[in-house]
Amino acid sequence: MADPKTIPVAELLAQVTKIFERCGLRPESAAAVAGVIVAGERDHCKSHGIYRIEGCLRVLAAGKVVPDAVPVIHDAGKAVIEVDAGGGFSNPAFCAARAALAARAKEVGLAALVIRDCLHFSALWHDVEALAEDGLASLSMCPSYSFVAPAGGTKPLLGTNPIAFGWPRPGPHPYVFDFATSVAARGEIELHRRAGTPIPEGWAIDRDGNPTTDPEAALGGAMLTFGAHKGSAISTMVELLAGAMLGEFMSKEALDFMGGTDLLPRHGALILALDPASFAARSGRDPIAEGERLLTAIGAQGARLPSQRRFAARAVSLRDGIPLSAAELAQLARFETLGLAALTA
Amino acid sequence: MADPKTIPVAELLAQVTKIFERCGLRPESAAAVAGVIVAGERDHCKSHGIYRIEGCLRVLAAGKVVPDAVPVIHDAGKAVIEVDAGGGFSNPAFCAARAALAARAKEVGLAALVIRDCLHFSALWHDVEALAEDGLASLSMCPSYSFVAPAGGTKPLLGTNPIAFGWPRPGPHPYVFDFATSVAARGEIELHRRAGTPIPEGWAIDRDGNPTTDPEAALGGAMLTFGAHKGSAISTMVELLAGAMLGEFMSKEALDFMGGTDLLPRHGALILALDPASFAARSGRDPIAEGERLLTAIGAQGARLPSQRRFAARAVSLRDGIPLSAAELAQLARFETLGLAALTA
Repeated sequence: MADPKTIPVAELLAQVTKIFERCGLRPESAAAVAGVIVAGERDHCKSHGIYRIEGCLRVLAAGKVVPDAVPVIHDAGKAVIEVDAGGGFSNPAFCAARAALAARAKEVGLAALVIRDCLHFSALWHDVEALAEDGLASLSMCPSYSFVAPAGGTKPLLGTNPIAFGWPRPGPHPYVFDFATSVAARGEIELHRRAGTPIPEGWAIDRDGNPTTDPEAALGGAMLTFGAHKGSAISTMVELLAGAMLGEFMSKEALDFMGGTDLLPRHGALILALDPASFAARSGRDPIAEGERLLTAIGAQGARLPSQRRFAARAVSLRDGIPLSAAELAQLARFETLGLAALTA
Repeated sequence: MADPKTIPVAELLAQVTKIFERCGLRPESAAAVAGVIVAGERDHCKSHGIYRIEGCLRVLAAGKVVPDAVPVIHDAGKAVIEVDAGGGFSNPAFCAARAALAARAKEVGLAALVIRDCLHFSALWHDVEALAEDGLASLSMCPSYSFVAPAGGTKPLLGTNPIAFGWPRPGPHPYVFDFATSVAARGEIELHRRAGTPIPEGWAIDRDGNPTTDPEAALGGAMLTFGAHKGSAISTMVELLAGAMLGEFMSKEALDFMGGTDLLPRHGALILALDPASFAARSGRDPIAEGERLLTAIGAQGARLPSQRRFAARAVSLRDGIPLSAAELAQLARFETLGLAALTA
């Protein structure tokens, strides 16, 4: 096995792109999927980094994602643009429609992008950051798998339903938040289970609906939302707007469709893009400069903005490269050489 | 002093409308302001009921709201419609623009309403319920006064920044949530102060930024957001979208402008309206029926949907009338007879 090594971001991107091409993705699709995975690794979000490659390969091997799907844009010239991912990953669909969404938002003030029938595994911040680069505020959300009970409920019904928001800033980094509406990630409970440590109170209930700190009981029961009934209401909104409203799967249907949680969920996604320049025009004020007054005042209190840690990690990665363990390097090499066969080799 | 009495909703509405006409509001404006106040009383939201009349009269007496303001709609035919409230209350401006907003959302899929330069005192659920009646999903938000510290911060900077969401349902009541992004309302801390009881942990910090359960110290310090850093991020989003983006006041500027918290805040408001029928059209599924599957499943767990208590109270009020105390009836009569002079009489 090779030694641990620090490799440049561009080099890792090229290698991960090759892996997905090797597994049958079109070059544009491979680049889109690899782009978001390497961005996660670059920003030290290990849970959305190269760790995700194996999960993507598993849905490919299971035939539950269409590798050579070609995103098809449907645009009737209104404020809603749709892109059919065709059962492929969500990222190529977003990349295919991003320019049209941004142009429409600037033209009419705000616009929505509906992504239909996609496999979704990536953090949402990648998309809202891209739109912030285009000068747009944006809000992105999607359902997931039903692991979470509504406030006052006893059974899993809602997804971890992430929600992300981006706002353009003059410097290199936008204001970005991206979080699950569950109080914790399911992976965190799994880590407690493996370590044999209890989970904090308020994270989960057991299968009878009683509060539990036992990770095993939590995984067999349901997770809870952040912020009690308020977080539950927001999570329900995500199901309605990014599931029911689009005529795409909500979290429970996504789980029923896949027949288990081993594979990535298949559903739709909703992204709203708003053009601050259009909204502010009649006021005569500069919306971005106004936003800075707030954001710098938050920083002046010593409070950290969301994503700040991620941006700091990014700067280090871009300067020094990304450190990978011997095991990670070996797995990347295996995926690159064997493609999907690596899963069974 | 008269005896306590239960009066029909329509009768109370007529009386409150007369009070505002007596204070110089145009009939349409008086009806709009009275409508939202009586709706609060009807739904047993006493904090947004007739209790609010005195606060409205005080801003009128202080000359900080324009009583005979005529809302002016600016509509360039795009996805954003603006209405200048002209320094009047927000409610007449919303009423004036509601039909145009709903029509535009149905025409192009989604549309935004910007309310400029308004005095805002009412619950947001009133507006999202109206749009749900029109068959639309909607999201409404506005800044307030800067009473709330950002997560990790020490000083008030954010408002209590309410956010409301509405989703149409086949029955008489939509799915509606409406809550402050602060963990509690400022009025609740005030009630603890008067009662001499400590506030729960996690509600507030003192003026040095330390956690406190002393209501006095909390009122001199800062309130906290719900859901820790997640709620803080959402509150910041409200400042950016409904303040900076519109070129209208954020919560800190609103406070600086009014020079104190005795009077209602003056700022803008943002309402997004989305047409489920447009969004779902290509899917062939009925978005409202899909939403019902989720909402009935929540109810089947024994969990209460947001606003359910309010709808139950409404049914009682519409059937039996609204019980008012002798003091409340006397104050209404005084306001009706004396108008603004009642404040100093």
